[in-house]
Amino acid sequence: MKFFSDNAASVHPAVLEAMARSNAVDTAYDSDRLSRSFDAVFSDLFETQVRAMWVATGTAANALSLAALCPPYRGVLCHRDAHIQNDEAGAPEFYTHGAKLLLADGPGAKLTSETIAARLGEIPDDVHRVQPAAISITNATEYGRSYSASEVAAIGDLAKTRGLRFHMDGARFANAVVHSGASPADLTWRAGVEVLSFGFVKNGGMSAEALVFFDTTLADEVLIRRKRAGHLLSKGRYLAAQVLALLGEDRWLDNARAANVGAARLAGALGDRLLHPVEANEVFARMSPDEVASLRAQGFEFYDWAAGEVRFVVSWDQPDTEIAALADALSDL
Amino acid sequence: MKFFSDNAASVHPAVLEAMARSNAVDTAYDSDRLSRSFDAVFSDLFETQVRAMWVATGTAANALSLAALCPPYRGVLCHRDAHIQNDEAGAPEFYTHGAKLLLADGPGAKLTSETIAARLGEIPDDVHRVQPAAISITNATEYGRSYSASEVAAIGDLAKTRGLRFHMDGARFANAVVHSGASPADLTWRAGVEVLSFGFVKNGGMSAEALVFFDTTLADEVLIRRKRAGHLLSKGRYLAAQVLALLGEDRWLDNARAANVGAARLAGALGDRLLHPVEANEVFARMSPDEVASLRAQGFEFYDWAAGEVRFVVSWDQPDTEIAALADALSDL
Amino acid sequence: MKFFSDNAASVHPAVLEAMARSNAVDTAYDSDRLSRSFDAVFSDLFETQVRAMWVATGTAANALSLAALCPPYRGVLCHRDAHIQNDEAGAPEFYTHGAKLLLADGPGAKLTSETIAARLGEIPDDVHRVQPAAISITNATEYGRSYSASEVAAIGDLAKTRGLRFHMDGARFANAVVHSGASPADLTWRAGVEVLSFGFVKNGGMSAEALVFFDTTLADEVLIRRKRAGHLLSKGRYLAAQVLALLGEDRWLDNARAANVGAARLAGALGDRLLHPVEANEVFARMSPDEVASLRAQGFEFYDWAAGEVRFVVSWDQPDTEIAALADALSDL
Amino acid sequence: MKFFSDNAASVHPAVLEAMARSNAVDTAYDSDRLSRSFDAVFSDLFETQVRAMWVATGTAANALSLAALCPPYRGVLCHRDAHIQNDEAGAPEFYTHGAKLLLADGPGAKLTSETIAARLGEIPDDVHRVQPAAISITNATEYGRSYSASEVAAIGDLAKTRGLRFHMDGARFANAVVHSGASPADLTWRAGVEVLSFGFVKNGGMSAEALVFFDTTLADEVLIRRKRAGHLLSKGRYLAAQVLALLGEDRWLDNARAANVGAARLAGALGDRLLHPVEANEVFARMSPDEVASLRAQGFEFYDWAAGEVRFVVSWDQPDTEIAALADALSDL
Repeated sequence: MKFFSDNAASVHPAVLEAMARSNAVDTAYDSDRLSRSFDAVFSDLFETQVRAMWVATGTAANALSLAALCPPYRGVLCHRDAHIQNDEAGAPEFYTHGAKLLLADGPGAKLTSETIAARLGEIPDDVHRVQPAAISITNATEYGRSYSASEVAAIGDLAKTRGLRFHMDGARFANAVVHSGASPADLTWRAGVEVLSFGFVKNGGMSAEALVFFDTTLADEVLIRRKRAGHLLSKGRYLAAQVLALLGEDRWLDNARAANVGAARLAGALGDRLLHPVEANEVFARMSPDEVASLRAQGFEFYDWAAGEVRFVVSWDQPDTEIAALADALSDL
Repeated sequence: MKFFSDNAASVHPAVLEAMARSNAVDTAYDSDRLSRSFDAVFSDLFETQVRAMWVATGTAANALSLAALCPPYRGVLCHRDAHIQNDEAGAPEFYTHGAKLLLADGPGAKLTSETIAARLGEIPDDVHRVQPAAISITNATEYGRSYSASEVAAIGDLAKTRGLRFHMDGARFANAVVHSGASPADLTWRAGVEVLSFGFVKNGGMSAEALVFFDTTLADEVLIRRKRAGHLLSKGRYLAAQVLALLGEDRWLDNARAANVGAARLAGALGDRLLHPVEANEVFARMSPDEVASLRAQGFEFYDWAAGEVRFVVSWDQPDTEIAALADALSDL
Repeated sequence: MKFFSDNAASVHPAVLEAMARSNAVDTAYDSDRLSRSFDAVFSDLFETQVRAMWVATGTAANALSLAALCPPYRGVLCHRDAHIQNDEAGAPEFYTHGAKLLLADGPGAKLTSETIAARLGEIPDDVHRVQPAAISITNATEYGRSYSASEVAAIGDLAKTRGLRFHMDGARFANAVVHSGASPADLTWRAGVEVLSFGFVKNGGMSAEALVFFDTTLADEVLIRRKRAGHLLSKGRYLAAQVLALLGEDRWLDNARAANVGAARLAGALGDRLLHPVEANEVFARMSPDEVASLRAQGFEFYDWAAGEVRFVVSWDQPDTEIAALADALSDL
Repeated sequence: MKFFSDNAASVHPAVLEAMARSNAVDTAYDSDRLSRSFDAVFSDLFETQVRAMWVATGTAANALSLAALCPPYRGVLCHRDAHIQNDEAGAPEFYTHGAKLLLADGPGAKLTSETIAARLGEIPDDVHRVQPAAISITNATEYGRSYSASEVAAIGDLAKTRGLRFHMDGARFANAVVHSGASPADLTWRAGVEVLSFGFVKNGGMSAEALVFFDTTLADEVLIRRKRAGHLLSKGRYLAAQVLALLGEDRWLDNARAANVGAARLAGALGDRLLHPVEANEVFARMSPDEVASLRAQGFEFYDWAAGEVRFVVSWDQPDTEIAALADALSDL
């Protein structure tokens, strides 16, 4: 029973079917009918005119976003535990050509307008120190916390006041939308977000994420950067099909809801072992080595996060039986 | 009837089936069973110990290769018409951090040890001029020419003599293997090639190429560079499945053979309109605007290459009826 | 008798004196009184409001300029024989983070609006090909040719029409101004130039060139890039002193005139051996190996440019006796 | 009375004289007699065969060093308060093409083998996290602390054990040598240091630092990188002259000694206001706003370091009268 990552889950049958349906010759790259529909589809979803494109990984989505928002000689303010800082092997530095990540703290990998303002205040305004150009937040965060629309908006206001650009890493955006109850628009552009990395791979996709530009002037440059990064696939229609299949019939929301519900069930079984409020599909818990060993002996796979801490992730396709079994096992600890 | 690119062809049914068969939870990234088999599978194919990994595009495969072979402050010698020079939006410069492409000439986008030696002779050996670090050839070339094993070996010998690394862009490697009749080993490492971009997308794949390292010491670094470039997909098993499906039952050779045969048939119909010997699946021909218009009116789609020149590409899945129809139409011009 | 390069000439006594006069504690970097005067001094010289700063080398001046004018994913159109292409070890690629130099041809390393337009016409406007962002010309050129104000203006008009930025490498700008008889303003911003690398080292300076921004909005970014490149010297006043000493009493023009006159005298002695019109302080001539040997035996040092071709450079401080001696020796060949 | 930085001090008369003596035509770049003597001169000083070259700034020296020691996709472990992290505008990221600085803590900006080992222990060894390639320490540190030879050696041993390269930023190396009493050799290569940025500008120089390679295999690459960064001055002899003048007659040690002695005197006057042991020429002290104002009213210039903290720097040429005056004023607080 695999609870180590939604990264490794299966692909939604509707996605596979949509890919198979795309198996006829079409024009190459992103000139096919499906790819060309992205702007309209995402504009509908976000209730405003956007530009959108597919990329194969969340790392590429984030790194391309940051390259568009931050010149090589400036920096991106993010959380010390952000995926872009810890888990992308320096992709932001590669794509931005050496911009610096400027780290701020806060529980649950969440930033607030206050913590950001404090961190900005520490940066002397001179030519010797790397100056910030952008803010990046992750929603839901690396610890499964979600932002409310007003929390995002407070950061968006700060960004605007300070002349900073604003990116959201939405590798688990669907889970955040479901948890917050806010509309996609309220969680993003209405709150000042200018570019969103909109994750689908953890949500039932195979190899397609979306980049959504609320500042539409950035999109043309990123089309070039995407090609230059080797991320313009020639048979792009198979990526487009994945994204469209998940957006269709609100599958992306259903999948996220299923995962969030499962995580909440595990949280309920954990009691005060819980390390962070569960606001998406990730569950972090305190656990002794013996307890860890006991769970593994029962067939549960999960991730050792830090000394005495473990992480469970519930995937979109996690069988209820597995969730129930793990919840029982956690209660029994 | 689409003859504009093998880029846009359909995906082989066996590939789709293999992908569907991979649709169970597995470990993420390239720790799955299929991805882990790459070293062994490609070592068998090339009759020597190699390291191999998947990447999503040929541009990424080439750019990662060049980054491993050439430091930022040196250059890569390639043909003026090479894909890496003209068609990858500066990906080699991006991945190598600014290495320079040093251009040589020759008919049909083919290099020879003589043309390379002459070009090297023009480069003053001082700190002011960018010095070469590597040679990159494309096989089959951008004009559908193939290298014989001895032609590659002559370049490989020169590379070794001059202390240069040696890369082969094999976006249409299958077509070159079929045309030359040489073994994969004879066309590559036995001839001095150290890294091969082994193309599958134009050969019935969807979104997977392979990087094959004959100099196995380069692979670990490229694993890091691949991640840093956002090219380590979390559900990598679906890429591995594509490559393995095409290698299985020699489908890659059958697909290439079908395309080459089709191209040869078109060549036969073109007579002295032919601009380059047809040694793969691409056909370049002289053609007047009226003739171009006439062909298009008959439903043939193809690419205007240059003034008075057109390109036809035969895909692995091109129906015989379409090839016959085009051959007839060309004969009738 | 050294005619191999103005690079290695002595430093003007007034420069050394000005540097010695600066030898008191002052504020660091470019906050000293001399550095702060640059904007005003160069605004006077160019009859318009400019921003100006010192850098230590022409290579840094050029590379910083191009980085400000061209994003990493686009290209700079320049002559195939340009210093930025051949003699700066890839500095433009380093500073621009991998932008591509797009090469055009023309005699004497000169570009014209026609040759540039023709080269631009060859670049397909798609995402696969690196698109141009800027034009860079060298005045005087690498072969000692100078541009007239109207020639520059024709290129400036083209640049504006095509939406391209415009840089002038003026490593020998003084020589070009003297030869053309045009005002510094007419040769630059009135002709569309947006950034000038204004050379002083070859003109009697020691280690200071100037960057002059006619598009003043670029300067703040370049101040940051200069620091990031390690080119913000802490005792900047000694660089500022050099530039100001050469601008004072029109020494820069006197120095250039002396060198140009000397070169013209050599040209007169060369007759039809001359390879390019002499419009600055460089002289290129056809010469047999025996003649080369004979001149060297007489004590003349100069550069072998290519097979059968040599280069003489007359420095600002070249003694008349040396010039006369070489002119005589050339006449005697 | 200027105590804000040794950055802005005057240039030693012997340096100016040596520069003036170099004012004859010579060969360009670093082929002149003075530059060519560097390897021998520094090999003598360090009692082993080294390679050495001049660069114009400490930032360039550090950034070039790190680029030679760390590939773009790895990281450099340094102190959170290191100059390379805070005061070089991202030059390390620029020159290394995006390598990451991995920060460790410790009082007085000093690292120890223990703090480094602890920090290394936090880095998961996988492809997602940037892995370290090198360690960089500053001696004397940004807070005026010096390393003993054995402290450096402990770090050098750790570096060797972990397969990490080892750089020393010696912007104030002279002050550290004088304070420690150790030989230059014991403080560097005998303790495992592979590259040293050897500062001269703060020590009476004008615009020349030295890069010293104890791992001599690195030097050729850095010669290319130096040129590519626009740091190969054409009249390099004037930089070489500065360095040689300061090494001559042990001026570099006398200058450092004078500054260290002055700083010690200030430290003595500060009593328990002192924030860090004074082991070079920098003095950090606790001070109230009123006290700061009082000192300034008496004509002392210095730097506000942080809230309630100030920094005094004693330069090589600081008059005894100024030091005495400041010591008195500090005692009177």
